[in-house]
Amino acid sequence: MDYQRTLTKYLLSFIEGLKQGGVKRAVISSGSRSTPLSLLVNRDPDIQSYIDIDERSAGFFALGLVKATQESVALICTSGSAAANYLPAICEAEATNQPLIVLTTDRPAELQGVGAPQAMNQHSLYGSHVKYAVELALPEDNPTMIDYSRWEGFTVSSRAQIVPKGPVHINIPLREPLVPDLTLPRPTAIPAKVLSNERVTDLSPLCPFFQQEGLIIVGEERSPEEARQLLSLAAKLHWPIVGDPLTNLATNQCEESTYLHQADLLFQGSVPAPRVILRFGRLPVTKPVTQWLGSQHVLTILVEEGHQFKDQLHRSSYLLDMTVSEFKHCFDKVSFTPVSSGWLAKWQKRQWLAEDILQANEDLQQFNHSGVVKQLLSQLHDQELFVANSNAIRLVDRLSLPAAHNLRIYGNRGVNGIDGLNSTMAGIVAASKHPLTLLIGDLAFFHDLTGLEMIRRYKLPVTIILLNNNGGGIFSFLPQHDLPTADFTTIFKTPQDLDYQSVAKLFGFNYHRPTSYSEFIPLLNQPGQHMIEIADSQECPVTIWHHLVSSYQQRSSEISD
Amino acid sequence: MDYQRTLTKYLLSFIEGLKQGGVKRAVISSGSRSTPLSLLVNRDPDIQSYIDIDERSAGFFALGLVKATQESVALICTSGSAAANYLPAICEAEATNQPLIVLTTDRPAELQGVGAPQAMNQHSLYGSHVKYAVELALPEDNPTMIDYSRWEGFTVSSRAQIVPKGPVHINIPLREPLVPDLTLPRPTAIPAKVLSNERVTDLSPLCPFFQQEGLIIVGEERSPEEARQLLSLAAKLHWPIVGDPLTNLATNQCEESTYLHQADLLFQGSVPAPRVILRFGRLPVTKPVTQWLGSQHVLTILVEEGHQFKDQLHRSSYLLDMTVSEFKHCFDKVSFTPVSSGWLAKWQKRQWLAEDILQANEDLQQFNHSGVVKQLLSQLHDQELFVANSNAIRLVDRLSLPAAHNLRIYGNRGVNGIDGLNSTMAGIVAASKHPLTLLIGDLAFFHDLTGLEMIRRYKLPVTIILLNNNGGGIFSFLPQHDLPTADFTTIFKTPQDLDYQSVAKLFGFNYHRPTSYSEFIPLLNQPGQHMIEIADSQECPVTIWHHLVSSYQQRSSEISD
Repeated sequence: MDYQRTLTKYLLSFIEGLKQGGVKRAVISSGSRSTPLSLLVNRDPDIQSYIDIDERSAGFFALGLVKATQESVALICTSGSAAANYLPAICEAEATNQPLIVLTTDRPAELQGVGAPQAMNQHSLYGSHVKYAVELALPEDNPTMIDYSRWEGFTVSSRAQIVPKGPVHINIPLREPLVPDLTLPRPTAIPAKVLSNERVTDLSPLCPFFQQEGLIIVGEERSPEEARQLLSLAAKLHWPIVGDPLTNLATNQCEESTYLHQADLLFQGSVPAPRVILRFGRLPVTKPVTQWLGSQHVLTILVEEGHQFKDQLHRSSYLLDMTVSEFKHCFDKVSFTPVSSGWLAKWQKRQWLAEDILQANEDLQQFNHSGVVKQLLSQLHDQELFVANSNAIRLVDRLSLPAAHNLRIYGNRGVNGIDGLNSTMAGIVAASKHPLTLLIGDLAFFHDLTGLEMIRRYKLPVTIILLNNNGGGIFSFLPQHDLPTADFTTIFKTPQDLDYQSVAKLFGFNYHRPTSYSEFIPLLNQPGQHMIEIADSQECPVTIWHHLVSSYQQRSSEISD
Repeated sequence: MDYQRTLTKYLLSFIEGLKQGGVKRAVISSGSRSTPLSLLVNRDPDIQSYIDIDERSAGFFALGLVKATQESVALICTSGSAAANYLPAICEAEATNQPLIVLTTDRPAELQGVGAPQAMNQHSLYGSHVKYAVELALPEDNPTMIDYSRWEGFTVSSRAQIVPKGPVHINIPLREPLVPDLTLPRPTAIPAKVLSNERVTDLSPLCPFFQQEGLIIVGEERSPEEARQLLSLAAKLHWPIVGDPLTNLATNQCEESTYLHQADLLFQGSVPAPRVILRFGRLPVTKPVTQWLGSQHVLTILVEEGHQFKDQLHRSSYLLDMTVSEFKHCFDKVSFTPVSSGWLAKWQKRQWLAEDILQANEDLQQFNHSGVVKQLLSQLHDQELFVANSNAIRLVDRLSLPAAHNLRIYGNRGVNGIDGLNSTMAGIVAASKHPLTLLIGDLAFFHDLTGLEMIRRYKLPVTIILLNNNGGGIFSFLPQHDLPTADFTTIFKTPQDLDYQSVAKLFGFNYHRPTSYSEFIPLLNQPGQHMIEIADSQECPVTIWHHLVSSYQQRSSEISD
């Protein structure tokens, strides 16, 4: 009975998503595994259902519905060869850009590849003939997974309608019992809407939101020009703005001080509750921001180029296919009354406190990794900075203070690997011809050793700051740190004990190993190829950071808004 | 030596295409199989090449070049595990929407799967992590294949730049000898240009072309509204317009008579030479139009929604991501001086001749498949017509005369199958609720027998005109007809000898078998479900058509322009 409720709530949420994605018609072919989906769709008053015994015919019948209405149609079938019968209609839909949404039900993983009846591999069954294929996770009844199933229904059906339109496939494994609980009410879900299949040109429908207390959250690598547009946007809205180092917001700060440099501290204390969240792209590296966002149920507008539906919280109510500059251009044409400056002041108060705490911290005066990072942005002039994964970018995100010296920051945060960072950085310098400083840990540096050859071959102006903590320092920040010492050292700490001076020699770098700021700072902003090795323990940055967090939490609890 | 020339010309054309698609930089990793590509790219004065020994590093180096320039970069490597090393950088490029163009060279088919050195299956090597993957055909030196290789280079690199941007992969099998002929000049290729990655809003750059003698060629299913917009466009340009029945141009004719109903005859005679061709979507069913177009080297503008690059002639110079109505809307905003009416008159003269020949033909007065089709469009009122593949649509394309009775035509021309036609038609009626006539041959009708149940179940207002020629009549038009009789009959003619009255009974249709027009015409436009079976031989339509073609060719040769 409990599983029936789970199954039903989960699928009702999924169907709600399908409707938000534009599904008004479905063609159902009967079968056992598809029972709950067929029943719930057929009973849905907003969906016109048709029954077609033969799935091949059903596929083409659905195609006819699409042709006559220009609206997408869902297909529902059971597992096994039933699903294979859709392929001819899918091929026709692919060639003529018709939005068919193919919902195949399936047996769960434990019944796959073991000779269970009516079971076959339905993953990517239609190959390249659908424009998108995904599998829905097994039903679970918790807020995250209920949001997720709605989001999958919404995005898969929306994708079919994105130009060039075409068929999409979602495979839905289900466990028995298969009869849903027909007494459960339909969910009252967060509404979601793709604002347009064409580029959006008018933001006036969003004007009411711009007049409320809001927060801007920016992710992904942003050019300095984009950063300036975002900061100007924040200033006009009187909203605070959050982003990680790669957004270049920290190095393009303007007078209004809307940017929250110390978001990683701020969001570990209590923050004022916004009524609107305006997001640009994926989420920043700053984990407390993501965690805090997960607990909010606030109207969210997501701006990303190309309808990619990248919302890991499954919450966005409006999705806009726009670049930052397109958004800014359209935004500047709408008129509205911004919120009073009191809203921003609440956030600034917290930012100032965090800055005070960083400035007063004595460990950060020492010559260690944390101290070096705190100073770095203000020491580099007219150049580029490549910030490596995984500790380096977090240290910069946490410890860097306001600074603007015509500095552009790069990184590789697509899938956050420590592979290829030296090479990517070299490629940037080869094309930009600007001097660049690389801030990198020893493991990431080692991983892409061969990439250093490009710096030598093309005589690229590069200074490498090697944060050598002899292994995987990031793990000292993570729960893995509490593992038995032998396990932790072997698998995560992974000391290499390498002499990096030999690397410098091999690739023709000038090698330096400063032990104080007076030795270190003059080494920056020099022409040629340099490697500056700085030693620290894996634990030191952790201790400093934990101390900063507890100071902030303690002192911020006294803030009254 | 000859093969060296072939290899070189083919790859130079491919590289020309890459440059038209925006490639200005390449990262080359050395190897044997990639020799000709590496050499020709490295010597290209328009491409800045970098050498990186390690393909994993090369992938990330290219990513850095992209980050610094926002321009796409080509990667070139040899066969085998070399290609596998690109995957980490491809994953990063996928997640951050960076346009990497991965060119992997490969051994040809005869060295695949047989233990040849440095050979492995490189098809779809990067799975879902590239947004597009394709394999280049082996080098051939003829105009079609030289155009093709340029088109592949152009489209694969353009696709990487289409939003959402991302990595693409082209696998390039090459035979030995691998050293190219370095004395050959670079080609002077047709320029090609994607007008914009965003929707085009201004057509004024194309204005000079609108003032020349042009021809509009329309493919794909078009709504009556789109047909009216296209006819209005043709009228304003004073250009003739060509399209097949599914374009709905034939049934929405306006006064200006720009539409060439008998294109299948016209393009089998000599036609005036246009200076511009404006295409909408794929090519129409009319084969002589495609064949004639293949012989033209005329500036071509291709309008299709969603940057799909569907130009089977590889010739388009301008590619516009627009719907018909977006194009018409922008077109109406530009001002230009159209060509004199003399241009259109030359085409109309031919159309009138073709109509005369059809009207005078005595075989078309008989009650046979050809005669029925000639009359059909003018006999149907306020309803829809679904035209089946494969003979039915060709007969309608060839034999139907001007008629406009609020008739909308549908079909399934995506991949032109005879599967699923009954079902598609039923889906259309179920959604539109309008009466519909289906014109279909006996094989296509039989293929989707189960689809008829939807008409019975939902009591859909459908009249089926069953053109029964007892098998595959289309093949009598094709070269297969000259095969030995036993082969032809068994494999292609495929007589079924079925009693279709039983089908009518099974699905509850009113059954009719008229033998004259006076019996046939009153059966049209009736409420309810009807099947009208009309018998003819497989040869009769062929004889009539060949006679019409030779009449037209003979009389049109006397036309002087």
